[in-house]
Amino acid sequence: MRQSQLLLNTLRERPSEADTEGHGLLLRGGYIRQLAAGIYSYLPLGRRVLRKVEDIVREEMERAGVQEVMLPSLQPAELWMESGRYGTYGKNLMTASDRHGREFVLGPTHEEAVTSLMKNEVSSYRKLPVRVFQIGTKFRDEKRPRFGLLRGREFIMKDAYSFDISEEGLDLSYRTMFEAYHRIFARCGLRFRAVEADAGTIGGDGGSHEFIALSAIGEDTVAVCGHCDYAANLEQAETVAWNGANAGFDGAESVSNTPPETRDEAAAGSVSFSLPEKFHTPDVRTIDQLAAAYSLNPEQIIKTLIYRADGESVAVLVRGDHEVNELKVGKYLGAEDIALADSDAVEAAAGVISGYVGPVGLGLPLLVDHAVAAMTEGIAGAGEPDFHLRGVRPGRDFSLARVGDFRNAAEGDECPRCREGRLTLHRGIEIGHVFKLGTRYSGKLGAAFLDASGREQSMIMGCYGIGISRLLAAVAEQNAGDGTIAWPDALAPYAVQIIIVSVKEEAQTALGDKLYGTLQALGLEVLLDDRDERPGVKFKDSGLIGAPQVVVIGREAAVGRVEYENRLSGVKETLGLDEAVLRIKEHVNNSRI
Amino acid sequence: MRQSQLLLNTLRERPSEADTEGHGLLLRGGYIRQLAAGIYSYLPLGRRVLRKVEDIVREEMERAGVQEVMLPSLQPAELWMESGRYGTYGKNLMTASDRHGREFVLGPTHEEAVTSLMKNEVSSYRKLPVRVFQIGTKFRDEKRPRFGLLRGREFIMKDAYSFDISEEGLDLSYRTMFEAYHRIFARCGLRFRAVEADAGTIGGDGGSHEFIALSAIGEDTVAVCGHCDYAANLEQAETVAWNGANAGFDGAESVSNTPPETRDEAAAGSVSFSLPEKFHTPDVRTIDQLAAAYSLNPEQIIKTLIYRADGESVAVLVRGDHEVNELKVGKYLGAEDIALADSDAVEAAAGVISGYVGPVGLGLPLLVDHAVAAMTEGIAGAGEPDFHLRGVRPGRDFSLARVGDFRNAAEGDECPRCREGRLTLHRGIEIGHVFKLGTRYSGKLGAAFLDASGREQSMIMGCYGIGISRLLAAVAEQNAGDGTIAWPDALAPYAVQIIIVSVKEEAQTALGDKLYGTLQALGLEVLLDDRDERPGVKFKDSGLIGAPQVVVIGREAAVGRVEYENRLSGVKETLGLDEAVLRIKEHVNNSRI
Repeated sequence: MRQSQLLLNTLRERPSEADTEGHGLLLRGGYIRQLAAGIYSYLPLGRRVLRKVEDIVREEMERAGVQEVMLPSLQPAELWMESGRYGTYGKNLMTASDRHGREFVLGPTHEEAVTSLMKNEVSSYRKLPVRVFQIGTKFRDEKRPRFGLLRGREFIMKDAYSFDISEEGLDLSYRTMFEAYHRIFARCGLRFRAVEADAGTIGGDGGSHEFIALSAIGEDTVAVCGHCDYAANLEQAETVAWNGANAGFDGAESVSNTPPETRDEAAAGSVSFSLPEKFHTPDVRTIDQLAAAYSLNPEQIIKTLIYRADGESVAVLVRGDHEVNELKVGKYLGAEDIALADSDAVEAAAGVISGYVGPVGLGLPLLVDHAVAAMTEGIAGAGEPDFHLRGVRPGRDFSLARVGDFRNAAEGDECPRCREGRLTLHRGIEIGHVFKLGTRYSGKLGAAFLDASGREQSMIMGCYGIGISRLLAAVAEQNAGDGTIAWPDALAPYAVQIIIVSVKEEAQTALGDKLYGTLQALGLEVLLDDRDERPGVKFKDSGLIGAPQVVVIGREAAVGRVEYENRLSGVKETLGLDEAVLRIKEHVNNSRI
Repeated sequence: MRQSQLLLNTLRERPSEADTEGHGLLLRGGYIRQLAAGIYSYLPLGRRVLRKVEDIVREEMERAGVQEVMLPSLQPAELWMESGRYGTYGKNLMTASDRHGREFVLGPTHEEAVTSLMKNEVSSYRKLPVRVFQIGTKFRDEKRPRFGLLRGREFIMKDAYSFDISEEGLDLSYRTMFEAYHRIFARCGLRFRAVEADAGTIGGDGGSHEFIALSAIGEDTVAVCGHCDYAANLEQAETVAWNGANAGFDGAESVSNTPPETRDEAAAGSVSFSLPEKFHTPDVRTIDQLAAAYSLNPEQIIKTLIYRADGESVAVLVRGDHEVNELKVGKYLGAEDIALADSDAVEAAAGVISGYVGPVGLGLPLLVDHAVAAMTEGIAGAGEPDFHLRGVRPGRDFSLARVGDFRNAAEGDECPRCREGRLTLHRGIEIGHVFKLGTRYSGKLGAAFLDASGREQSMIMGCYGIGISRLLAAVAEQNAGDGTIAWPDALAPYAVQIIIVSVKEEAQTALGDKLYGTLQALGLEVLLDDRDERPGVKFKDSGLIGAPQVVVIGREAAVGRVEYENRLSGVKETLGLDEAVLRIKEHVNNSRI
């Protein structure tokens, strides 16, 4: 492609609408443009990268024996009512009514549509398993669209669905997809982790994994073990009761084998300790203030938080250095809706302003995180303004009837799987998600088959998504910086860019054209900057286009020499034309995947 | 692909929802399934064919220098108000509101979105011309969805747009697209015609062509000259005043050079004829009845039809064997809304019941088709019940102030272009449409550029559509019959199907597997029917899948012989395995395009 003909309008400055480095790069480089909040057009550069992602995904799906289909965006609302998701999706669901007043959902995903299809197409175990996928546009009426393509209202997904006759079949489908996802993300040049995850509104409880592209701007946090292969979304990551992260607790290992309940009864029965002692803590309403004012470690403090769970108040106790995990609390309670109580609700439920709530004498159900239950004694709010208690003993001073894992994993936690490594936390972008759905949809929508003995059974389903447009954005985040990007070979809009520094110099133009012809004849995608622009403009644009290899044709064109740059390795060399072609061929051959 | 693993559910009978042969085939063969009226899912076979169409279109667009983009389906309603199409599209527009109550149009086409994009991306003549295309889903809330994929509410289109700095530039863009379209439809194996067309709601008046796939079930009619290359949509096809199709008028050629107005004044002035004569025609209210009852040729009769044009009544006169062309009438009058008056309105406007309306003494504007103006005399309604007039002379007995081309071209008409050939009429399916838009959108939406002298000018636009899903349906219509189809090589879901007649016979299975491996190694897309089904079922399914080449492995497998069938040429041969492979290779090499 001659750049003079390319529809490309680069921006000098990062537009104010850009939330992140990657988003800024995609806007500045003219890859995408916003038409409305969370709704983007893809310009030629962006469309090229997107197609490369699509092609890789399609190839790997086909290699995994997944058949391509295409399901409509317009889905009768009745289908979503049948599955129960019309309600649970709520305002995130975009809908449209036809001229006869019939309501349609603009599909944010296609479980209902594909299950309803399979119900009619397959009736015997002999026609299973079936795995299908599609690549297409999805709609989701996000409350706050942001980060460009990362949280949009119209976006591109690959969604796939498996239908098996047994749990073992599902396991195989799931594993097949899991492996295909690894290949896809690796081919796209992403730094990513597969982590255990919560199934969210998609539902099903057979298990699920997220694929997370590591990035500081990601909305997800994952916990990763440095020793074994344990990795989980922070929402989901398990914690153990004790761990060496508790700096004041070196002997933890030996104690951790005693379950808190046992230990606590023993403590209460056999040893005599003094009762909690009240001390004056005026204007101290946060853990940090308390720790600072009284030279305490946060891990010595018991934090008592009031939550509203499906309209009921409960107290959750975690250590001062820990964070409550609302998902875990909700699951424990079987509550659909869980949120921190506001200050009025705290006062109404606990009888004291927030900051001084404590477990002792509190007339609410207490959910005690197992790290709190494992404390010998701690400092807690006194339940009256301007006072805290020291010497508060779990089990003696408050009930341990409800002990569990109620907190987020923290940096340095002992790994819950191998119990040897330590967890580190990383921010990341969710780019894929695989779920074992079981019969959640097939049961509700009646997608059944006759098994070998003629009995009717629900199909066992899995579903598998990749955010195609998100993946593009994640790759941009990982590879963009300071107004430039280096696209991985597999996704680059052009494999090579040739820059003619001055098109007024005949020697440069001739050499550029020659190289352009040579590389095109090799089947490479080449962009030739043949524009009559200042060198500064050309180099700036080149940084935004981010071809992995660039050949600059400048003054030395007269003696047949060019500057070769490999953006991925950082190598820059001045070479003869043939040598440059050789370098390019070598790199391309080495990067084929 | 092993057929035992293919998601394919064929139907024994043509479902009642199928309107046409092709639609029935696509349903029976499990290519598509209806989710709601006019909304379809594509199953693996259908998706494969669709992808082949998409690939051909994409290749030819790129070859023509058109750059791929992707514009959103959700478009702010304001954009459509700005262009004025929010109103003109009316109920065909599908809309959705977001959670904040902002209204979006689900794009049925993207003139507004692309013009608004170009307005921001391109400001100088130096960056033009630009041509872009996309392939994606469109929405149109059809009043009566029908014929399967031919008139759906959610469908797949390729739409392209060109932006030039001058009319000459647009001409070049238009011609480039026109030629690309020819290649695309030829590669898809279609029998088609490019015809002059009306621009419809897309607008613009620089000209437009439709590409029509010939098919008896098509909703369009095209007139084609047998001598020159004139071809036009019936809506648009010009007619000449006289032609040999008028059986009673052999000397037409010599007379046609005299304009009706001149001739008619001459006739009125110099020759004396008797006045029109009333005759009794009870219960005769149609041309056919009149012609039958009085042994007349329809071309001797003057048909007077009352229309309502933007609320006003007008009379249109055409010969008894001709049909009024409402589009031509509307254009002549500059009317937006034109429709035949109902019987009450006829009576109110003409003072007589329909069937007896005539031009003599009628107090309405008379639009006289030039073929009527050219008649010496004719028979017409008398303007009172149960009577007609004979000897009615145009110009003498009614005004020729408004003479024009107001009729549809008819089979056998003289060609308006070469005046030598005769027109034949054909039914067809519109599969593509190219338009010269000029500045209709760029003017309204402010997409301007600075020309070489620094003056601001509106971009000169063209737009170019192909109905991708429609094209699939059109190919099916042209190639389906009696429960079978023979897909053209370029679109076939599989190039070759191998049928193992009995999978219980080891010799057959072994030979089938061997051939399957050999053909796959050649890079061919092969479907192996390895199912444990009765031969009758297999052959029926094979007919529905329609691979151009089929190898049947039956009894003679034991001696290494197979039956080779070429569905396109009709050849069937019994061959050794190697010979069969050779035949297949030959056919594939010959069919590459």
